[in-house]
Amino acid sequence: MMRCPALLADRFNTLHYDSQRRLVVLLDRRRYPFAVEFVECRTVEDVARAVEEMVVQGGPPLAYAAGLGLALAAFQNSEQATAVQRSDLQVAAARLIATRPTADDLHHLIPQALQRGQGALASGISAGEAILTFVNAEIERGNQVSRACGEHAAQLLAEGDCILTHCFAGAALAWMLWTAKEQGKKIRLYPTETRPYLQGARLTVASAKEMGIPCTLIMDNMPAFMMSRGLLDKFICAADRITLDGHISNKIGTYQIALAAHQHQVPFYVLGYDGPDPRTATGADIPIEERNPEEIFFASGVDLQDQHSAKVRTAVEGVEGYYPAFDITPPELITGIVTDRGLFPPGEIKRYLEKE
Amino acid sequence: MMRCPALLADRFNTLHYDSQRRLVVLLDRRRYPFAVEFVECRTVEDVARAVEEMVVQGGPPLAYAAGLGLALAAFQNSEQATAVQRSDLQVAAARLIATRPTADDLHHLIPQALQRGQGALASGISAGEAILTFVNAEIERGNQVSRACGEHAAQLLAEGDCILTHCFAGAALAWMLWTAKEQGKKIRLYPTETRPYLQGARLTVASAKEMGIPCTLIMDNMPAFMMSRGLLDKFICAADRITLDGHISNKIGTYQIALAAHQHQVPFYVLGYDGPDPRTATGADIPIEERNPEEIFFASGVDLQDQHSAKVRTAVEGVEGYYPAFDITPPELITGIVTDRGLFPPGEIKRYLEKE
Repeated sequence: MMRCPALLADRFNTLHYDSQRRLVVLLDRRRYPFAVEFVECRTVEDVARAVEEMVVQGGPPLAYAAGLGLALAAFQNSEQATAVQRSDLQVAAARLIATRPTADDLHHLIPQALQRGQGALASGISAGEAILTFVNAEIERGNQVSRACGEHAAQLLAEGDCILTHCFAGAALAWMLWTAKEQGKKIRLYPTETRPYLQGARLTVASAKEMGIPCTLIMDNMPAFMMSRGLLDKFICAADRITLDGHISNKIGTYQIALAAHQHQVPFYVLGYDGPDPRTATGADIPIEERNPEEIFFASGVDLQDQHSAKVRTAVEGVEGYYPAFDITPPELITGIVTDRGLFPPGEIKRYLEKE
Repeated sequence: MMRCPALLADRFNTLHYDSQRRLVVLLDRRRYPFAVEFVECRTVEDVARAVEEMVVQGGPPLAYAAGLGLALAAFQNSEQATAVQRSDLQVAAARLIATRPTADDLHHLIPQALQRGQGALASGISAGEAILTFVNAEIERGNQVSRACGEHAAQLLAEGDCILTHCFAGAALAWMLWTAKEQGKKIRLYPTETRPYLQGARLTVASAKEMGIPCTLIMDNMPAFMMSRGLLDKFICAADRITLDGHISNKIGTYQIALAAHQHQVPFYVLGYDGPDPRTATGADIPIEERNPEEIFFASGVDLQDQHSAKVRTAVEGVEGYYPAFDITPPELITGIVTDRGLFPPGEIKRYLEKE
């Protein structure tokens, strides 16, 4: 199969550690594809803020960015006494883990990366190298997981399918679409805009365009109506966390669409990447991140006058706001969870962990 | 009771015919409240375009604007031979009726206004005066209907209610909130942003602010999650058309929220103003307006740099779009329809017509 031409299908396109300049370099997903700009992080705090401020988004990518941030911390402290390095690494790991609560990848990757770093220090070798090697291997593994997950998902698509998606479902979505296209299936993608950050209107649309997949943008308030008119065949999105009993958390709005899909018998598949979080039993155990309500008062895009990026205030001044960034969808509303190890009914997703 | 301080509670604040200058003057609801600007329409075509291009929005207001447009046409042609006036009026009425298909008010008001004009011509009196008198009386009647509907709706609100609303539910919403406030009820309004035109973030929030009603803005993709957390007590919106069997059409997204409200047993009340359309039997008979998809690729607001109105392109260039402007909610999902004649179960809304 040809290489998938979507930029976001390969995470190495969007984030890396620059050893020479000692920088973590991150594609600014808040502006892509209107601008292809990279944010250069010189300190752990820079990386933590980039994660918090949505420079990098999506469960796995933000975990990788944080992991590279930990490597950066280790390299920067490498001249210190070992005890100092050890404690600085712990502080850095704690700061990075505190950036985003909902997706589980970050909460797995950072403790493991920290362990690699501490292990290296105990052996008298470079903690930075140990962490970087580990994180780069995780990125490579994540790329392979995405591709395998996307290829399994492509099997679920039928000729002529109109596929609704919400937010940006990441590299697995790109691989699903690309695989289906290579198989000769004619499909059309319907991304929701995904307010407030417009991931659908930007990242999903850009990826579809890069792959030549026909794509029709809709607003977040349209899926149920379109289902009632028989205009959508499947709903497919990602998950920031999957619980052992088959609940998923994903971008706010997923639950609302899942209710509509259930009402209209539209199959709802979750791109589950590398499966459930073995430490989260059920939906009630997933913390839902509540972001700064200020973020919902604006929209960013390209100014029509001068063709530059611009941010407009869309809400009246003085209003309050509420911004839960994720929601939880119960297994009853999910048709299946597709992983790199194949398709699971949501109630049996636990079996993923047995199937090495 | 004190006069309701919301500008949009009195339609005469937002539209009128300027006899001296022969203009129809319309508040530009696309920019209010960021700018309080009036669009001056010199011809029927100007009025028709203003209605099509969302200068004036909402079932009754756009019908009033079109009615004033018909008066304008009559005044402008008053020097012509009667036969010419008669046929020009018919052409103008057809143009105005063709502007928007979904809301029924326009489709009632224009034929009646035309009849008044033709009747005047047959009696040798001014068609313009006859139409203007009729339309102004309709605006006044509409104001009274809105107030009565809002006052009935206020009875449904309980101390402490958190009320979700979608789009701008018009003057009746303002009267409902104002009446409840005058009754000493503490309530909080949760408007959805309402993409793409942001009626919630602008018109609803501005009206709440003018009345001093606490208000928390949310995105269109948040209602179901908030209901699942018990954060919303009631869902209340308007309807562009109500059928004899209790279906309603309203701004796209209403149906999706109604499904979520039903799932979570959140009561859903429709502000039904002056009741059902006697000529529409059921939901399948309501034409759903499909607007130009270009409209969903942008967001308008206030530029942060220069504090002026600006429009940004939020979607990637080259994508297609789909923009159904309304959806249909069946009676099973509606708790009650509140009118100027009181509350009706949706299945019994037909009785409104018997209750003069």
